[in-house]
Amino acid sequence: MSHNSFGHLFRITTWGESHGPALGVVVDGCPPGVPLEAAEIQADLDRRKPGGSRFVTQRRESDTVEILSGVFPDRAGRQVTTGTPISLFIRNEDQRSKDYGDIKEKFRPGHADFTYIAKYGIRDYRGGGRSSARETAARVAAGAVARKVLSHLLGNVTIRGALVQMGPHRVDRARWDWRAVSGNPFFCPDPVVAAAWEDYLDAIRKAGSSIGAVVEVVAEGIPAGLGAPIYGKLDSEIAAAMMTINAVKGVEIGAGMASAELTGEENADEIRIGNDGRPLFLSNNAGGILGGISSGQPIVCRFAVKPTSSILTPRRTIDAAGNETEVSTKGRHDPCVGIRAVPVGEAMMAIVLADQLLRHRGQVGNCGSAAPAETESGAKS
Amino acid sequence: MSHNSFGHLFRITTWGESHGPALGVVVDGCPPGVPLEAAEIQADLDRRKPGGSRFVTQRRESDTVEILSGVFPDRAGRQVTTGTPISLFIRNEDQRSKDYGDIKEKFRPGHADFTYIAKYGIRDYRGGGRSSARETAARVAAGAVARKVLSHLLGNVTIRGALVQMGPHRVDRARWDWRAVSGNPFFCPDPVVAAAWEDYLDAIRKAGSSIGAVVEVVAEGIPAGLGAPIYGKLDSEIAAAMMTINAVKGVEIGAGMASAELTGEENADEIRIGNDGRPLFLSNNAGGILGGISSGQPIVCRFAVKPTSSILTPRRTIDAAGNETEVSTKGRHDPCVGIRAVPVGEAMMAIVLADQLLRHRGQVGNCGSAAPAETESGAKS
Amino acid sequence: MSHNSFGHLFRITTWGESHGPALGVVVDGCPPGVPLEAAEIQADLDRRKPGGSRFVTQRRESDTVEILSGVFPDRAGRQVTTGTPISLFIRNEDQRSKDYGDIKEKFRPGHADFTYIAKYGIRDYRGGGRSSARETAARVAAGAVARKVLSHLLGNVTIRGALVQMGPHRVDRARWDWRAVSGNPFFCPDPVVAAAWEDYLDAIRKAGSSIGAVVEVVAEGIPAGLGAPIYGKLDSEIAAAMMTINAVKGVEIGAGMASAELTGEENADEIRIGNDGRPLFLSNNAGGILGGISSGQPIVCRFAVKPTSSILTPRRTIDAAGNETEVSTKGRHDPCVGIRAVPVGEAMMAIVLADQLLRHRGQVGNCGSAAPAETESGAKS
Amino acid sequence: MSHNSFGHLFRITTWGESHGPALGVVVDGCPPGVPLEAAEIQADLDRRKPGGSRFVTQRRESDTVEILSGVFPDRAGRQVTTGTPISLFIRNEDQRSKDYGDIKEKFRPGHADFTYIAKYGIRDYRGGGRSSARETAARVAAGAVARKVLSHLLGNVTIRGALVQMGPHRVDRARWDWRAVSGNPFFCPDPVVAAAWEDYLDAIRKAGSSIGAVVEVVAEGIPAGLGAPIYGKLDSEIAAAMMTINAVKGVEIGAGMASAELTGEENADEIRIGNDGRPLFLSNNAGGILGGISSGQPIVCRFAVKPTSSILTPRRTIDAAGNETEVSTKGRHDPCVGIRAVPVGEAMMAIVLADQLLRHRGQVGNCGSAAPAETESGAKS
Repeated sequence: MSHNSFGHLFRITTWGESHGPALGVVVDGCPPGVPLEAAEIQADLDRRKPGGSRFVTQRRESDTVEILSGVFPDRAGRQVTTGTPISLFIRNEDQRSKDYGDIKEKFRPGHADFTYIAKYGIRDYRGGGRSSARETAARVAAGAVARKVLSHLLGNVTIRGALVQMGPHRVDRARWDWRAVSGNPFFCPDPVVAAAWEDYLDAIRKAGSSIGAVVEVVAEGIPAGLGAPIYGKLDSEIAAAMMTINAVKGVEIGAGMASAELTGEENADEIRIGNDGRPLFLSNNAGGILGGISSGQPIVCRFAVKPTSSILTPRRTIDAAGNETEVSTKGRHDPCVGIRAVPVGEAMMAIVLADQLLRHRGQVGNCGSAAPAETESGAKS
Repeated sequence: MSHNSFGHLFRITTWGESHGPALGVVVDGCPPGVPLEAAEIQADLDRRKPGGSRFVTQRRESDTVEILSGVFPDRAGRQVTTGTPISLFIRNEDQRSKDYGDIKEKFRPGHADFTYIAKYGIRDYRGGGRSSARETAARVAAGAVARKVLSHLLGNVTIRGALVQMGPHRVDRARWDWRAVSGNPFFCPDPVVAAAWEDYLDAIRKAGSSIGAVVEVVAEGIPAGLGAPIYGKLDSEIAAAMMTINAVKGVEIGAGMASAELTGEENADEIRIGNDGRPLFLSNNAGGILGGISSGQPIVCRFAVKPTSSILTPRRTIDAAGNETEVSTKGRHDPCVGIRAVPVGEAMMAIVLADQLLRHRGQVGNCGSAAPAETESGAKS
Repeated sequence: MSHNSFGHLFRITTWGESHGPALGVVVDGCPPGVPLEAAEIQADLDRRKPGGSRFVTQRRESDTVEILSGVFPDRAGRQVTTGTPISLFIRNEDQRSKDYGDIKEKFRPGHADFTYIAKYGIRDYRGGGRSSARETAARVAAGAVARKVLSHLLGNVTIRGALVQMGPHRVDRARWDWRAVSGNPFFCPDPVVAAAWEDYLDAIRKAGSSIGAVVEVVAEGIPAGLGAPIYGKLDSEIAAAMMTINAVKGVEIGAGMASAELTGEENADEIRIGNDGRPLFLSNNAGGILGGISSGQPIVCRFAVKPTSSILTPRRTIDAAGNETEVSTKGRHDPCVGIRAVPVGEAMMAIVLADQLLRHRGQVGNCGSAAPAETESGAKS
Repeated sequence: MSHNSFGHLFRITTWGESHGPALGVVVDGCPPGVPLEAAEIQADLDRRKPGGSRFVTQRRESDTVEILSGVFPDRAGRQVTTGTPISLFIRNEDQRSKDYGDIKEKFRPGHADFTYIAKYGIRDYRGGGRSSARETAARVAAGAVARKVLSHLLGNVTIRGALVQMGPHRVDRARWDWRAVSGNPFFCPDPVVAAAWEDYLDAIRKAGSSIGAVVEVVAEGIPAGLGAPIYGKLDSEIAAAMMTINAVKGVEIGAGMASAELTGEENADEIRIGNDGRPLFLSNNAGGILGGISSGQPIVCRFAVKPTSSILTPRRTIDAAGNETEVSTKGRHDPCVGIRAVPVGEAMMAIVLADQLLRHRGQVGNCGSAAPAETESGAKS
């Protein structure tokens, strides 16, 4: 019911504004005995943090995370979770003392300025306040804990994200290479298109404009059985999770919106027995989820991120007093916020899966291991 | 946390299987004093019920609803809600006593057969059991109550759905006419394309095949301020709600997946002051939601429904004993389940909005009335 | 968040009014594969149902329960739970068509009449409507399912209740005999005092008066580890559960209110190693719960039930129009509602424990078996 | 569902261990526009903090609170809540680097040592870790916010606690004086008995022993209508809240456990019309709650706090290896933890009421003002 919490048995609660002293997250319900070091969380945060390339905001934040509770050395001296809430704390460092006068009184189109005032009658306008994408640092930190839980309980679980479309330019899935993702500033799995995106996004950036994107997140190693019928469906919770990420306007599972154009024959993911004697799906239109429950195939989700609303070009708007005016947003902004949404999407996927895993274990007991499925069906779906 | 409940302050809990004696829903948290007659709920149910045309399943169910609790005559003699749980009850009538032998042991591709067994080790295979679309009757009944709540508290709220795509065939938005929706068996707002769909779907139906579709749901009359930051976002809850509907694989808000191809300039919904002195948005790429909070514009959502998985063409699969086999599904099935998903989508939208309205009132107090926005932006977005 | 639901992973939602057509409960989150027959539920209901002796209300209700969903025959032909919601349905049979004119407009002291109107502005005054103790039939039905879950997962779990005080008359714990409980109309474990209570309560009944009571519920066979720190404490949830029962005004765990008079030395439940090599507590002031977590000892709870508010003696009150008046309540009432609260207390204990067991299994994994503790410490504490 | 959260619309999530770097609470769902300064929270914290007299632990903690998020200056320059989560942060200062060897391996009777290990397999033994009463500082901080919400929305609300019993020594209610509470180190409303308690507790303290106590909390100015039928009952949530406080073993509402000895005639709180034309209850056995809903009378709750389990006298126990041993607890402990539970009980009452108020407003709309009731019925009940 809390508007700043997500999950049920594995539950995160985030807090903090863009220009407040700090932000953080409380992770509750984590199983005990899971090895957890701040450095592991930091590795995920470093993938999201600003300033990594000229294609993301130049705000300088080290995003250094501290673990303030919920861990203790076990008898072997390893720091592990204790089952009590894990408080993760990140100090804001670069709250530039600029003049917010323009934003303070004007509603930037595409931003939450107008709606926060409509709802609350007051807003922290500095850097977007609570609606800033800085909140996603807390999610990534919590997601790192969720990944540890999944690995601890299920063994080899891989959750990877990639940018698969920027503006009208899509990756060629025939060239999909997960190793390429860390080799370019876009988390792009297609090295050829990544090179082209550099020029494309440079032009947008220099024009003070921005562009949308599509992110794909694939989870492998998830056993069949996670999720639940009706309102606890795994795909419903993934959709909810991704749609909470700033600027996301669409979510797809498996074949997604394109399912509308498929016939029943095309859509059916046929099943055989694989060489190892286990079920083998011949395709993955379902994105690894049937009836809201994981099938053992890779879980495949995509989401569209709208272009950054902070642009240099003046846009018509009104101010708080009800006068017509124009606004253009200067400052340090991402020309394509979709890029930094990649690790955020991975984190939300991990959080949903960790929560569903614990809930499944609660109702049903231990989960089997994942059924094998065709190689990289996620990438090819 | 309950897997068969949805919502928080306005909360529904559904129960029942396709071939059990009955199904139903408990609606909790409804405000008191809302006029409510079974006939009003029945009207919505009749739009969803099977057997209405040759394009939907021929199962014969009257879907007659009974109100078993939560209403009482007020001093004026009108039946109104009392604030206590409203139990809505629908008896199953046409559980055809056919031989389920084939389905009983085989996992139908695209259905939840495999995953229910993977999760629970047991399933009610008769008609899909709990995973049957019959469960959506309960949602439509609950949605009818939600509509009454919205009208009672906000006045003129309109929530309408339409089928906007069947297979590759889309409506022409220039011909959009809400009045046409009730004039064809597809809930199609474009009378020209609706006529063409008849032949198209007849061919699919006669071939024992099926086809996907896209549904659009538009809510008008919703004031600015509903929703909440971060994990209680209105769009996140709408996405979750629609993704819980059987066979849905993608959800979009406003410009949706196409946001990826927009620039910041194109995406910005500029704001002026309208003739009535209130904010007027010049476009609605946001689908009526900014930062997770309603803006007063029409709320616009679309979702893709995959083709019915029950088809006559044999598909390769395995059986419960792990043998490779084939399955083809005879019986009375919808050639395009997207059609009957239209009233279900409306119901889920109403439930999300009623819940968010009560939660907003709880935290902030009464909600203002809707800001005007451009005419039928929803339909045109 | 739902006001008519209780529990988290194992969650019940009740509905229905005293004089409506029926009442019921939806049990969600039940593990699959638990054998469940209506007759087992009926056995518990029969212990609570009215009309069993002259010391309880003479309303004639068979309280016949139907299972409408959530069960299916397993491969061995036994009816078992499927993991989907279990809808339990009880028809009201004896809604006597008496004149409610007196109660309709007057607020009976001690009843919820005044507060329901203060809250909702409307109430179903027939038999107390939603605030009637008839709602507890639904709890007892759900509690029967919870018992089955506990036995299925933990083996030999015993949850027993007894009336330990009626008015000023307490049982002698030296005479405690669980077998005596079913041998008198009071669920009294002390056969000597039970005999005395017959005359005592006859006098009260004939005078049209009523009297309070104390119920004790003891759960044995619960392993150490159930519960959670801070706000998920097992004792907190037991207290909440018992305090939701009609007319309950106080709840105690272990030594309860008398803890205030103990020194640290007296209160400490010392620990030794028993003959079987397992921890053995030498007393049970804790009532089986330390730091909110079960210790493996019997879990001991007591709660006070106020006297029935429906009495023949006129009491001063006001009516809905604000006039001073008097009211006396005729009709078929329990002279000591504490009696029928015994099976209700057992049911709530079972529901709390089943929910905590599933939540424990979700976060931590399987629970060990109960640590032995001194014989019948619960009864003697 | 989170075990470290409490409340629904007004929801707190606490984190931190006794000897970790800090502890804190996230308050979510607070209405916007509520004036809130750290100094106001600090005033409540100062009433709970250790070291205030020789009768409480001598641990030196300033318990200085920082507000890290959720507030912003309004147009008048006042710091007010914004509706986003309020993160309150308290640094631990006096984590004495003593040798924990004894406690580390031995289970202290009455403490959560045994059960934490039974549940989680690991525990932070330093100062009790998560089970330490230091966690209650976070509750008191959150409670201060809840008080501000109540005052903001309801006007004059007073929530006061008092110690009414220490060991066998009770206050004389004829001498009840709320002003006396701040005039002695016990929060005692009876100045005569307070003087006697000094000698009594000195003797216990010097003997290295400890003693139990009873706390009473009274809320005045609460309108009729808060709470909900069945599982959202106000008294159920108060009982749950108080039972989550460390060492609490019993909770009473109004006449409490003594209800068992009342007849229906005695128990009925008769109603008249007061001089101001509003309902006037002639007694308050109900403790201000009927059918789970507030009646407008003072809400009266009492809870028993067991004696501090940390005592100097050796007690028999076992160690983690399963050996029989003895343990005595040195260090800085409260001889009567009930004393410092007084402000904690007030805080929990405020949190329950704030949450119920927002939930009521959500379902029903604005709440009226409190019905008057007899003078200080709470104190005299």
